Amino acid sequence: MNEFSFIEYLKKKIRSTGRVCVGIGDDAAVLSVDKEKRLVVSTDVIVENVDFKLKTMSPERIGRKALAVNLSDIAAMGAMPTAFVISIGKPAHITTSWLKRFYNGLLVLAKQYDIPCIGGDFSRSKEFFASITIFGEISPHQLVKRSGAKSGDWIAVTGSLGGSLLRHHYDFTPRIQEGSLLARCVAPSAMIDISDGLVQDLSHILEASKVGAALDLEKIPISLDAKKMCFGNKAKALSRALSDGEDFELLFTVSSQKKKILENVWKKKFPKVPLTWIGKIDGEKPMIHWRCHGKTTRAPRLSQKGFSHF
Amino acid sequence: MNEFSFIEYLKKKIRSTGRVCVGIGDDAAVLSVDKEKRLVVSTDVIVENVDFKLKTMSPERIGRKALAVNLSDIAAMGAMPTAFVISIGKPAHITTSWLKRFYNGLLVLAKQYDIPCIGGDFSRSKEFFASITIFGEISPHQLVKRSGAKSGDWIAVTGSLGGSLLRHHYDFTPRIQEGSLLARCVAPSAMIDISDGLVQDLSHILEASKVGAALDLEKIPISLDAKKMCFGNKAKALSRALSDGEDFELLFTVSSQKKKILENVWKKKFPKVPLTWIGKIDGEKPMIHWRCHGKTTRAPRLSQKGFSHF
Repeated sequence: MNEFSFIEYLKKKIRSTGRVCVGIGDDAAVLSVDKEKRLVVSTDVIVENVDFKLKTMSPERIGRKALAVNLSDIAAMGAMPTAFVISIGKPAHITTSWLKRFYNGLLVLAKQYDIPCIGGDFSRSKEFFASITIFGEISPHQLVKRSGAKSGDWIAVTGSLGGSLLRHHYDFTPRIQEGSLLARCVAPSAMIDISDGLVQDLSHILEASKVGAALDLEKIPISLDAKKMCFGNKAKALSRALSDGEDFELLFTVSSQKKKILENVWKKKFPKVPLTWIGKIDGEKPMIHWRCHGKTTRAPRLSQKGFSHF
Repeated sequence: MNEFSFIEYLKKKIRSTGRVCVGIGDDAAVLSVDKEKRLVVSTDVIVENVDFKLKTMSPERIGRKALAVNLSDIAAMGAMPTAFVISIGKPAHITTSWLKRFYNGLLVLAKQYDIPCIGGDFSRSKEFFASITIFGEISPHQLVKRSGAKSGDWIAVTGSLGGSLLRHHYDFTPRIQEGSLLARCVAPSAMIDISDGLVQDLSHILEASKVGAALDLEKIPISLDAKKMCFGNKAKALSRALSDGEDFELLFTVSSQKKKILENVWKKKFPKVPLTWIGKIDGEKPMIHWRCHGKTTRAPRLSQKGFSHF
């Protein structure tokens, strides 16, 4: 059993209640609070030598990233973050001055989004880990799940993709403002943040929505860092854009009617953030049909396949 | 800097907002949701070889305890639990069948309290850890903090204390029903769950409330397990009752007027759960004045002093 089959096992085993609007299996869980409000909850854990190395990453950057990945999950639901708690495993080789710098990085980002740290827990451990649970809020009709994509919807992505390893994975800006605007203005039929790579995360939308997709390879926005890492080799850079993890951009689907509305609003609100239409939802099988300049083409090579923690 | 001074450092550093009713430093944090509701949040992490040993404790018991300690924090606020999320660090030596048994123990307890697991995260790690964040709900006027104890209030404790290590630390019943009744019926002026030991946890109430206490040594309810562990040595058993950790009983203060009301309600509602009056709040210095049958006595020996994870 790998991580994903174990999660499927848990989904079947775990009972839900009427209060749970979204349970296990989306970017965040959603609980009903009252008629006008939903509580959005996401949790992410980072572990030394799995998600970062102490030797190559500063404590400030590790702290910033620990919170930023959680903010990205809140953004993917279209919600606004409100607060967070953090549990820390502290090994003997982590000093309190290192820990202070970790908190500095984390709290600078928390201040930017005006979200207080409201609690936490410490334990001894052999390796450093930090588990953050973040809360957000959204009104019921604005909530965006992974499961609503419909045939004919356009597929869009924010920013540019691939090569995150060079820099972007620790200095990215969580797309909170963008996700919230999308939820309020065009109610995307589905949305996810790209953490496992475009292809894998699009597959999550397709499986949850029980639809297929046609992607236009020439439209994929390749980041400068992906190109840099491939020394100008276009095929390799494209492969990175399609499958490198930790882009933390928003991938979403909207109906044809709303595409025009969104284009106009987006240019005014986020003139510096690229918004790219990369294909359409098509068919009922959760698979990707590849196109290049309108013609069917074979599936491109991917830089990596899914990662299981088990 | 030890764990507690680091938490003090963080409390000063971390900014709060108007939404935060209770921040770092109580059993749980409290966020304002709307006029009639408060969201209660607590987080606890357990780590292999710190909180349990794989060799001596079954996965079901470890899973049960991971959730039970969180429920105990919710009980200490007088709140009712609603849902939880869990992050897990899974080392290679933990099999998925062990993990299934861990979840079994955890989910049996979750079912008893009707609280769904709404999300989680997995990571590789060197040692097993589980970080649970639990949510609860309470109306604003019923919320019980650590900080409201007043001179003249009576001090009470549920159940009996000490010797938890023998059995109680993994099979205790979180005092959710009791905590909720207390909040609804007599609005304790302060409450905490005993996780660090009676003396240390009472000190947390005294410091938060800026008051002192007089404790009656002969009134302390000593558990059978504490007596068993001390082979009948009364002084040693008392010492355990005063300072052994992980009793997970409720320690609270109520005004004189409410003492009688509570005694009547308690007998009807919880005939099997002892409720013991162990002393009174007295003075303004956060210190304990020891008495035995009404006479001042010197401070008793404690089985252990505070534990710092740093």
